[in-house]
Amino acid sequence: MYHPVISQCIQNLKCLETCLDKAEQHAAAKKFDVGVLMTSRLAPDMQPFIYQVQSACDYVKAAAAWLSGQSPPRHEDNEQTVDELRARIRKTVALAESMKEAQYAGASERKVKLSWAPGKVIGGEDYLLQLTIPNTFFHLAMAYAILRHNGVDVGKRDFLGPVNFVDA
Amino acid sequence: MYHPVISQCIQNLKCLETCLDKAEQHAAAKKFDVGVLMTSRLAPDMQPFIYQVQSACDYVKAAAAWLSGQSPPRHEDNEQTVDELRARIRKTVALAESMKEAQYAGASERKVKLSWAPGKVIGGEDYLLQLTIPNTFFHLAMAYAILRHNGVDVGKRDFLGPVNFVDA
Repeated sequence: MYHPVISQCIQNLKCLETCLDKAEQHAAAKKFDVGVLMTSRLAPDMQPFIYQVQSACDYVKAAAAWLSGQSPPRHEDNEQTVDELRARIRKTVALAESMKEAQYAGASERKVKLSWAPGKVIGGEDYLLQLTIPNTFFHLAMAYAILRHNGVDVGKRDFLGPVNFVDA
Repeated sequence: MYHPVISQCIQNLKCLETCLDKAEQHAAAKKFDVGVLMTSRLAPDMQPFIYQVQSACDYVKAAAAWLSGQSPPRHEDNEQTVDELRARIRKTVALAESMKEAQYAGASERKVKLSWAPGKVIGGEDYLLQLTIPNTFFHLAMAYAILRHNGVDVGKRDFLGPVNFVDA
């Protein structure tokens, strides 16, 4: 399940680019600096939009790397503009898509060590299910929610992306 | 992957009960009717908290049923109180947990037909990956975001629930 689940996370990460397009269009139509949206948050003690995007990227990057037996490269959190966020998303997607299905063989037996849980490890399956999926979708949804709350015309279909319905 | 992924969705749905506890505590401390939170939204043209919970429940219910070869029972969307939402979550969890791993055999070959996509079907794997995971976590995250935006002291750990770290 590692390759299909991570591929889906990548797919939904790509959808963020549509939300970024709509954020730019909204700011242009309303004649305000789109940077305002980049630093918006849902609560004063919550992380802003840019962080939500960076964090979604990092959960996808880390899952693709650790579960295919590699160490994830460090991506600096220095984005400030929409174009820089697009670049962050694209380098994450390129990295994660470079892992082929065969590289996830044995992912269940891997133990993943995370910097914020010193002295601990988590098994590959628990890492995918308990951390990768919930965290990736949490941060994607928070990015979406910040834009939606600020009037950007994003909808659930922008969040979901392509769905393979076929004729019955 | 059907049973472990749906089990994880169930796990995160259960976590909503912690958020409901905190919503009640916040309303009591601030001396306002918790019903205000139940009908809160992030944007005027977005669905309120109660709907987000109902919808998260329904994606979990539907996945557990369709992918194990059953038709999901209809759950009326008539909840108005925190206790009624708890009951909705619990009946969803009980139903979804009643499906055993063996019942998901053949889920990949199933075709799922959804009322809002007339004349179309979606294969079991696409249904799990493209609809169940993104929609379940989307609605769970919107419920969380509505509470967070309104000052309820929920944090990411409440959203994630238990994580099986073990000693390195």
